[in-house]
Amino acid sequence: MATNAILYHAGCSVCLDAEQHLAQALDRDRYALEIVHLGESRDLVDQAARAGVKSVPALVLDGAVYHINYGADLSALR
Amino acid sequence: MATNAILYHAGCSVCLDAEQHLAQALDRDRYALEIVHLGESRDLVDQAARAGVKSVPALVLDGAVYHINYGADLSALR
Repeated sequence: MATNAILYHAGCSVCLDAEQHLAQALDRDRYALEIVHLGESRDLVDQAARAGVKSVPALVLDGAVYHINYGADLSALR
Repeated sequence: MATNAILYHAGCSVCLDAEQHLAQALDRDRYALEIVHLGESRDLVDQAARAGVKSVPALVLDGAVYHINYGADLSALR
């Protein structure tokens, strides 16, 4: 069964690059990739915070959070 | 042909987690993964700096640099 991978982003250029490049480089046979745009889905900001996300873009892989470069603080999206 | 992916790290716990988790999640059919331990290969610190790496762990994917969480500044490894 594929492991969940969630990329949280906010539409910024750093975010889009991470989405289009790094997230797409994951092995899709092993990871089910979900892309969450927190600017458009603000109700999911709390879910991201609970997962440990502090800034975007961030990739949550099997429960572990990887902050990738730096686009914006999560607090700026509330 | 596989694209080059280089993970620069320095043996720290943040680095090792990124290596064992995120880097291993890449699609190995499309990416040829190279792991560079800058603590053990200090002659490669300049190569990392030229690629745009500012801190470790960092993943250089097809020429683009993704700093993943934060382990140590590159300057601390010189």
